[in-house]
Order: sequence, then C-alpha cells, then structure tokens
Amino acid sequence: MIIQIKPDRVGSPEVAELCAFYETHPTEADGATLVITSGSVKGLDPKFLNLAERVHVTDGDMQLSDKRWLEGRSSTVNGLTVGDGTTTAMIAGPCAVEDREQIEKTADFLVGLGVKLFRAGAYKPRTSPYSFQGLGLEGLKILREVCDARGLAVVTEVRDATHAAEVLELADVAQIGAKAMYDHGVLKACGDSRKTILLKRGFGTTLKEFVQAAEFILSRGNPNVMLCERGIRTFETGTRFTLDLCGVAYVKEKTNLPVILDPSHAMGYRYGVSDLARACTAMGVDGLLIEVHPTPDKAKSDAAQQLTFEMFQALWESLPPVAAAVGRRIA
Amino acid sequence: MIIQIKPDRVGSPEVAELCAFYETHPTEADGATLVITSGSVKGLDPKFLNLAERVHVTDGDMQLSDKRWLEGRSSTVNGLTVGDGTTTAMIAGPCAVEDREQIEKTADFLVGLGVKLFRAGAYKPRTSPYSFQGLGLEGLKILREVCDARGLAVVTEVRDATHAAEVLELADVAQIGAKAMYDHGVLKACGDSRKTILLKRGFGTTLKEFVQAAEFILSRGNPNVMLCERGIRTFETGTRFTLDLCGVAYVKEKTNLPVILDPSHAMGYRYGVSDLARACTAMGVDGLLIEVHPTPDKAKSDAAQQLTFEMFQALWESLPPVAAAVGRRIA
Amino acid sequence: MIIQIKPDRVGSPEVAELCAFYETHPTEADGATLVITSGSVKGLDPKFLNLAERVHVTDGDMQLSDKRWLEGRSSTVNGLTVGDGTTTAMIAGPCAVEDREQIEKTADFLVGLGVKLFRAGAYKPRTSPYSFQGLGLEGLKILREVCDARGLAVVTEVRDATHAAEVLELADVAQIGAKAMYDHGVLKACGDSRKTILLKRGFGTTLKEFVQAAEFILSRGNPNVMLCERGIRTFETGTRFTLDLCGVAYVKEKTNLPVILDPSHAMGYRYGVSDLARACTAMGVDGLLIEVHPTPDKAKSDAAQQLTFEMFQALWESLPPVAAAVGRRIA
Amino acid sequence: MIIQIKPDRVGSPEVAELCAFYETHPTEADGATLVITSGSVKGLDPKFLNLAERVHVTDGDMQLSDKRWLEGRSSTVNGLTVGDGTTTAMIAGPCAVEDREQIEKTADFLVGLGVKLFRAGAYKPRTSPYSFQGLGLEGLKILREVCDARGLAVVTEVRDATHAAEVLELADVAQIGAKAMYDHGVLKACGDSRKTILLKRGFGTTLKEFVQAAEFILSRGNPNVMLCERGIRTFETGTRFTLDLCGVAYVKEKTNLPVILDPSHAMGYRYGVSDLARACTAMGVDGLLIEVHPTPDKAKSDAAQQLTFEMFQALWESLPPVAAAVGRRIA
Repeated sequence: MIIQIKPDRVGSPEVAELCAFYETHPTEADGATLVITSGSVKGLDPKFLNLAERVHVTDGDMQLSDKRWLEGRSSTVNGLTVGDGTTTAMIAGPCAVEDREQIEKTADFLVGLGVKLFRAGAYKPRTSPYSFQGLGLEGLKILREVCDARGLAVVTEVRDATHAAEVLELADVAQIGAKAMYDHGVLKACGDSRKTILLKRGFGTTLKEFVQAAEFILSRGNPNVMLCERGIRTFETGTRFTLDLCGVAYVKEKTNLPVILDPSHAMGYRYGVSDLARACTAMGVDGLLIEVHPTPDKAKSDAAQQLTFEMFQALWESLPPVAAAVGRRIA
Repeated sequence: MIIQIKPDRVGSPEVAELCAFYETHPTEADGATLVITSGSVKGLDPKFLNLAERVHVTDGDMQLSDKRWLEGRSSTVNGLTVGDGTTTAMIAGPCAVEDREQIEKTADFLVGLGVKLFRAGAYKPRTSPYSFQGLGLEGLKILREVCDARGLAVVTEVRDATHAAEVLELADVAQIGAKAMYDHGVLKACGDSRKTILLKRGFGTTLKEFVQAAEFILSRGNPNVMLCERGIRTFETGTRFTLDLCGVAYVKEKTNLPVILDPSHAMGYRYGVSDLARACTAMGVDGLLIEVHPTPDKAKSDAAQQLTFEMFQALWESLPPVAAAVGRRIA
Repeated sequence: MIIQIKPDRVGSPEVAELCAFYETHPTEADGATLVITSGSVKGLDPKFLNLAERVHVTDGDMQLSDKRWLEGRSSTVNGLTVGDGTTTAMIAGPCAVEDREQIEKTADFLVGLGVKLFRAGAYKPRTSPYSFQGLGLEGLKILREVCDARGLAVVTEVRDATHAAEVLELADVAQIGAKAMYDHGVLKACGDSRKTILLKRGFGTTLKEFVQAAEFILSRGNPNVMLCERGIRTFETGTRFTLDLCGVAYVKEKTNLPVILDPSHAMGYRYGVSDLARACTAMGVDGLLIEVHPTPDKAKSDAAQQLTFEMFQALWESLPPVAAAVGRRIA
Repeated sequence: MIIQIKPDRVGSPEVAELCAFYETHPTEADGATLVITSGSVKGLDPKFLNLAERVHVTDGDMQLSDKRWLEGRSSTVNGLTVGDGTTTAMIAGPCAVEDREQIEKTADFLVGLGVKLFRAGAYKPRTSPYSFQGLGLEGLKILREVCDARGLAVVTEVRDATHAAEVLELADVAQIGAKAMYDHGVLKACGDSRKTILLKRGFGTTLKEFVQAAEFILSRGNPNVMLCERGIRTFETGTRFTLDLCGVAYVKEKTNLPVILDPSHAMGYRYGVSDLARACTAMGVDGLLIEVHPTPDKAKSDAAQQLTFEMFQALWESLPPVAAAVGRRIA
C-alpha cells in the first residue's frame, strides 16, 4: 500500500505514528512524501485517513512500478525520450571496452548510422577469475571521451558496489547487470542517484523479483528506471539463454516501466540476433540492446554473439518498417 | 549419416550387408531408399562406397531434418502451402470442440475473415482425470462436417495411440500435442501416414529431442512435418509457459522444417497473445496457432487464454504490415 | 471432493441426479462407489447429503491419493509389501533386455544377494529413432522366463498404448516411464488392470501433475500405484537430471502413495549413484530403483550410469545400517 | 593450467615473460607462487619448463579446487575441523538476528545440545525493499557478544561489498549468500581475508559457475572455502527450491572443497527439513545448515521453514546413527 501524505502533514507526529504502526518510514518519491507498506491489502487504517492525499492498495510488492499507481514512466537520455510509447531506442556497442581504437571504430560506425546510445562494459562481471575482467576506470574514461567527441550517450555497467560511484558519475545510463540485480549496495547507490538506470533481469530471477529490484530504486526517489529482459536460464542449452517475451508481455501489462530487450545475450549466437531483434520490435518495446564489434571473432568476451558491422547495418535498415507496423519509430 | 542407396542396388545383398554392418535397416523417405545410422561421423566405410548415390554425414540425430540434407520442406493444406518462405499461415479456433453451435459460430467468424485452417481439439490431453476430456470421435465428426461445409481445413490433436487412426483419417492436419511428443505409438502412426503432422514441442523437451521426434516421422517416409513451438516450462510462473523464440531461431537456422508458433498456450492469458503473435510474425515464421472462442470465459478448457472475436479480429487486421516488413504475407 | 455413496443408494436415480449436477460419473474405487468432482471446495450440496456415506473435500486434484482420504497405500509384489513403512525395497537390473545371457547373468547375481524385484526394459522409449529401441515382446518373454526360473518379480516398462496389454499380462509391476506419464491410453489401461503400477514422474512434470496422473489410475479402480521420482530437468547439465528430494518430502507428507527413488537416471553417471541411494534410503522411502549391468560400458543404452556388479554389491552391503537408522530394513 | 613457480625463480624476469605470454599474473596460493591460465589444455610451453616446480593442466576453470591439484581442503573453526572426512558439522540458528533475547534463547538451546557453530543473519538480502532488512552492524554485534559468552562460533552473511569488512572482522565464518555469489566486490574481500568462507550456490547458478566463484577466493590466497548447496530454482513451485543432491555428488567427486548442505532454504517448509537433513547426512557431507527459531511462526523472515526447538532436538538426536552408517560423526 502506498500512502501519499498530504503536503501540510509531512513531518507531523501523526505521520511518525503512522510509520510506527506499519513498521516502515517515509520516502520521497514521485514528487511527494510516501509511506509504503508491504502486503497491506486491507487499505489504510481509518484512524490515519486524514493524513492521506491518496491511498493506493496493491496485493504484492509491485507498488511504485504499478501501472495503476502511475500510468507510465519515461526517461530522457541524450535528447531521446525512452518509454513514451512512440519510439524503440537502439542501444548498441561492443560487449567490453578492449582498447580506444576498438571503441572509436565502433562509435564512428554507429554515429554514421544515426544511433544515439552507445553501450560497452568497463567492469565485466565475469564468472571465472581467469577471464578478461575489463579495463575498469581506465575503460570508463575511454568510453566517456570517445562518446563525448561524437555526441553519443554512454550506457555502461555497474558490476559491484565498490565502483558504483564512478559509473554513476561518468555514465549517462548506469546498467545493473543480471548478476548484480540483487545487490543492495548497487541498488541503493542507483536509487540515491538520479541517473537513468537500466536494470537487467537476473537469469534466475522471477518477474516478481525483477520488479521488486526496480522498487528498491524507485523507493529511494529515482524515477528513472528501465527494465531489461536479457534471457533466462532454462533447461535448453542449444542457445545461451531463453528470451522471455511472455515475461515482457507481463511487465508491459502490469508495470509503468520502460522495457528494453537484449536479444544478443539471450541468443548467444550471432545468427539469431537479427530475427529476434525484429520480433522484439514488433512486440512494441521501448528499446533494443545489441552487441556489435569490429571483429567479433577476436573479441575478448561474448565473441560468438556480437554482430559484425555488416550484420548490424542490415538489421538497422530492416527495423523501421517493423516498428512502423506497430506504431513506433526506431531512434 | 544418411546413405542414399543407388536405385539399381536397392534390395541387393550388399545393402543387407551394409545394414548389418551399421545395425540398422533401410528406410523409404524423400523419394529414395536410405540407410540412416546414428552418430556415425566418420563417413561411409569405403567398402560400401559403390552402393551410395549420396552420403550425408551429420554429427548428431538431426538427419533428414538437417538443412544441409534438404534445403527446405513445405506442406500444402487446403490449397495453402506452408513452409515455402512466402507466407505466415493462420491456424485458429477454440481449444476444444464443446458442441456443434460453438464450432459453427467460430468457423463462420473465421471464414468471414478469410482464415483457411481451423483448429479445435476433440481428444483433450487433460492432466487431471476430473477435468473435461473432450468429446472424442463425436467431436471429431462435428469438426469435419462444420469445416467441410465452409471450406476450412481441420487441424486437430492425436492424444494417444488408441485413436490415432481416427484422427489421421478425419483430419487434414494431425497435431501431436506437447504431452504426446515422445509417444512411439503416435509417432509411428503419423510416420506411416502421409497427412501433414503438426508436431508440438513438449514443455520439458530440448530442441535436440524435438527434432528427434520429427525424425521419427520423417524416417518412416512422411515428409509432411511441421514443428510447433508452444512454450517451455521454466521457473517463471507469472505466465503459463515461456515462449522460446531463441529456440525458434535455432530450428530456423538448422532444420528444413516449417515452424509454427503458438503464443496462446505459451502466454496462458489473453492480454499478451496479440503482442506475442506480432513478435512471432516478425521472426519470419511459417504459421501461427491462435485460440479464439465465442465466449472464452465460459470455455471448458483454457478459458483464460482464448481470444474473444473482437480481440482476434484486431490481431488479424494488425498482422499484414508486420508480415510485409519481413517479406511475407498472412494467409 | 469425493462423495462415497451409501451402499443401499448405489444405482439409484438420485445418484444419477448428483452426477448430472456435478457433471461427472460414479467410479468404483477403494471398495466403494464414489463420485469425484474437481475443485469443489464448498462441500456437498445439502440436497444430496442423504446419499453420502462419507464426504471428503479437497482443494485441488489430489483426491484418492490424499492422505486425509486414506492414510496409506501399499502393494504386495512377490511376497514383499511395499509402502507399509517398514521396508525399503530394492528393484534392480539393467536398463534394457539386450539378450538372454545378459539377463540371466544379472538375475543370478541379484538373486544371490537376496534381491527380489528385477527390472529391465523390453520396450525402450528412446528419443532418437536411430537408437536401440528394445527387443519388444521377445525381450518381455525372456524377462518372464528368466525371472520365473529364479523366483524374481518382473518390473518392466509400458512405452505406449499399443503394447500396454502385453506388459500388463506378463509383468508383475508395470512401469509407466517418464515420457509416457501423460499418456491417457497407457494410464487407462493401467487403471483398468489390478497389477501394481510404478508411475515415474515426467522430467518436466510438476508434483501436482504427477499426483494427477496417479489419480487417473486410482479413479479407474486400481489402488496399486507407486510413485517414482527419477530426476527432473533443470538448467544444470553437469549431471543428467536433478533428483528432487524436496518433491519426495512433499509427496511423503501429502499423499498416501508408496514412493520409490531412481537415483541412476537422475545422476546419469555411475560415480554418484551409491551416495544418492544412501541419501534416498535415509529419507525413509519405500523403494530404490537401481540400474546394474554385467558390462556397463558395453550396454546398448544408459551405459554411463549402470553400476558394475562390484559397485552394486558394495552399495547393497552399505544400505542396511542406513535403513536401520531411520527404522526400516532393506529387502 | 596451474604453473607452480620454483621458489628460486619467483620474481625473475622469466616469470614476468611467462605471465605476459599467457596474459595473466602470479598468485600466492596454497603456499606457493602460482601462475594460473584459463582453458590452456595443451600444457606448458616448453620454453618455460625450467621455471615450473609443478604443472597441473585442467580442461576448464576448475583449477585450485580440482581434486587432482590438491586431494582435499578443510577448515578449522572453533576447534572443529570441517572437511577432513570424519565429521558432519551442524551449523544452526535462526534466519535473522531479530533482537538480543531471540539470539540468547536460541544460543542457550543449541549450546545445551552441544552445537558449536551458530548461524544468524544481520544483513538480510531481501528481494523486496519493503521487507525486514536485518539489524545490520547492531545485529552483528549482538551475535558476536552472545556467541562469545557461550563459546559458539559465529556464521553470518555478507550481503554486499559495502559492509564486507565488518562481517569479515566480526564473524568466524563469513557466508556469501546465494544472491551475492557473483559479486566481485564481495568475492575479492573474502579472497583477501583468511577467514573461513561459506559460499552458497546461487539458485540460478550452474555447478561450473559455483566452482568458479570458489576459484575467485582461492586464487586470491584464501584456502578456507566451503561450498554450500541450498537448492536451485526449477519449474517446481510446490517446494521453495529444489535441493540438488546430484550436484553434491558432482562436487564431492571433482573438487577438493568441503560441502555443506542447507535443506531449510531448499525445502522452504518445516515439514520436510528433518527428512532432508538425514538424507544429506547419508550422502556423507561435511556439514548441515539448519534454521531453528524459538517461535518460528513469529519470525520476521523465513517463518515457514525454521524448525521449532522440539523439531530441531528430534532431528539432532536422530542424526548420529545415520552419520555412523556412512563412517562419520555429528559435531
């Protein structure tokens, strides 16, 4: 239940009493002072009714992200508004920052096509300690400089809480990866920022938990959260993961959050990415996250799934009519 | 490995020797006499080379369905060719035959829109013995009569081996459901027929096993097999199943079989079906299987997921531009 | 809901009226005439109260298998009672009947140790059409003869409905395999028999569906059903399947059915089978199903998971203290 | 591949050359200077042979945890050695520190039985921001004081990198929870400590990734790592998770790490925990992690699964004969 406190009662002893009653505390979010309780489905206790400007009762932990609380949310990055229902935004770039030349080459290619949002990871959340772990802060700086020089926005990942501040300072969009999705240190840092957060679903994460992670950020006052479906882990190993478009239908129906799709990680192989990207576009989603690399076979991570420039260009050119068929444009 | 026997050596003692050597037997399929072995990746033993018109070595159990053996397969049903790359065929109708009036109403509605393939189940594979089990042969006859009167093709399910003959006689397309996919009795009956077979993937079935079930049918000489992805079972229970479009990319890339998508069963809820159907269409698939019912809320099975006539019509009208965007037409 | 009809009202027009009201029909099971309805949680309509000897209301499809309907069920096979809480029965033998000598050798070995229940498959439900499919009726006869000569009971599998009658005639225990678990043809044949049925859980099957399949058999009047957990399919592929002991705890708590564990198929590798078999025994289960073969590496199926005679003997000798620690004996 | 550098060559320019060649750096672990490479299966390049005391070639990322590198590892906590094959250690306590009284009560009860390792969480990794998040540092101090007064060791969780230092200072065993298993910040802090680390498997984590997370810690020089299986997420929702004993067989066979089992989280319901704990014991594992609470129904987290004192005592008394049957003792 969300209790929106009347502006003139904010800070009053009755609000403190209300918080004690529900064992919680007030939050500043969505332009108001809110008191949010978990799983209170009975509605506000009558003795507190005079404190409330609005009461929104939900039956679970989908609260600030609930479409019935707020119809829609959108974020504007680099002049591009993501989540207003008119656009499918392209976020493209290599898996990882490997060196300046690779980033410049890819950025030049993408700027040439008209792409506005550039992705690449500086802190790589590799499972094995013996794999390439990313260039860290040095990579982040390369990314910032190369993108600044070309008018591209930087979308990059926070791997863990120890460097969250760096990423939140230097990136335009901070991505929380699938493996960091439950990390309270990261979620809190992102909730205390006002940067746009691209929250990826963990590969073993239910839709309910996915939305709860977004609530962590929203309830700390950052309204700029976008959900990203990137494939879940199932018994099928013929592909890397299983892209969950049924889950996308679910979050589109129930939540107010923009939805971005990452077919590259889901598929794990170049050959299916473009078909999947067109399918995602026809679902009417707010963005696509696509990996592209100058020489994918030599990439230090995700070599099998990154598109070549040629493949990416063919995909890019095929998307506008698909988007148009569902009333959107590609940007 | 597939060894295509030279026509003039068919029936010779050397072929018997070859079969004994590989512990297998000859098959009539794809217009020739074939000897198929499992997992022989070394190529044909030199002593048998003079028997072979063509040798196709595969590294697994994808043999007759392998795109490198035969580029593509298609089936023509009711004048409509499914699988030739030009068309996405609509197969629509209610989950189950409940009574003649319900079938007539739905058939009239669909014929009016221009749909050519009608689906409904007479033998329902219900998990609980205490649920509606379908009308059986009586339902099958209603289906046949109603469709004959309207020029619709009948697509209906074989539940188990005890009534396979009935379905194969009366249907235009025999559907093997997700729960019957491993049933040797059903697979053999379908392989010995020449009717078109719509083979659904089991919800716990790997892509490899899915293709192996198709091989059962192909290797008995029936080339008319279509694969149907209908959602797999994963940890996510917010939706009924998880539609595996990564798996669809896999079978499109590797096999020669037409691919049909069933978003209704995957989603389990009306609200997401149309979005998913458009996504499937943009993948460039050969057909869609959509459940529609005159009064879904009163349906005896799958009440939550069947579309109303209004929803179906809106979907139907939205599909042509999506199909056109990927070079196909809806039929 | 189960409505047990008073003996003197069986066949009366009021019972017909009751059945029409609940859209169902009477069943002979557990020594009485029962009318079973799905999901009627409100209790019997008052107008029918005088027809009922006993009414049992459940909230789902666990009805005849519900522990609150009947405390426990057991089956006696070859003089051994399985399911009475005192014994963990060993069912052992090779995956498949390959030839008479292999069966004789294994049977001699197992009889020598004191094992009473012998398992081997004659109809193999292989996924690939190009793999060994079993010897069929010939294998079944070998099995029967070899076991008869040694006082062993025959436990063997029904693959599909086309040969259910043969297996039900010749076996002592008919096994329904994981892939046949939803097969109405097989379930009905087994329900109409009075042989003991070993029902394996499908690898993609929920506990609820597993119990529903048992209800199919019980509701046709055969009370001799045993559940067998053999591993479910999960994202983990380092082992063949994942043995679900949490699920075993669930069925032990809620159902009245004997529970048999098959660690061989779950593990898929010889090395873990004995450890798992001891774990299962310490759970307090009613039986173990273990694959053992004279020369596992040469087996025509399941070569990696069958135990050697030496491994089996070591396991067999280690089990009595484990069973004793939980108040059971091995038989 | 692990290359153990000869003591007299440590720090030499040739070692730097070797590291450059394999794109890696030296590590101090297992009492030596090691150079570890990922996936180098060809063996050491001959030109470096004179640098190596020992070379261990593996085919994956299981390196320092590989049983063929080091036969076994064990950790001594509170005078109890875990992992030497003689003992199954009991680690018990409530899910969370709720207040001093609850911790004292539980500690008194467990000390009375002879338990030596006490678990409770101060930093709770709750999925919802609206649930109880733990008492944090205050809880950690309560835990330390209560345990110190009774001679109990403290086992408690690191939730994220922001408080890793606190936990590593105050706990005897730092637990990395299922949701933090991929957190580089946490893994690095634990690897740089020499405290014993109880690493829980993520519920969506493969065995391979699980072992890789242990490698993160081992390769930073901390040899005191114990693996904890606590249930994986599968399609089955009748129980909270699915305890993966096949996976336990796998890690027992292949790795040198002690294995602890947590049946409480896997089951999610009190009723099955004791049966599962006995099963785990009969597998021959190195420890059990069991949740117990003075008044479980009133617990602020995991209310359904914590045992009552009575249930725990009955379990505790039932374990010695099970352990004895597999050559171990409970401690």
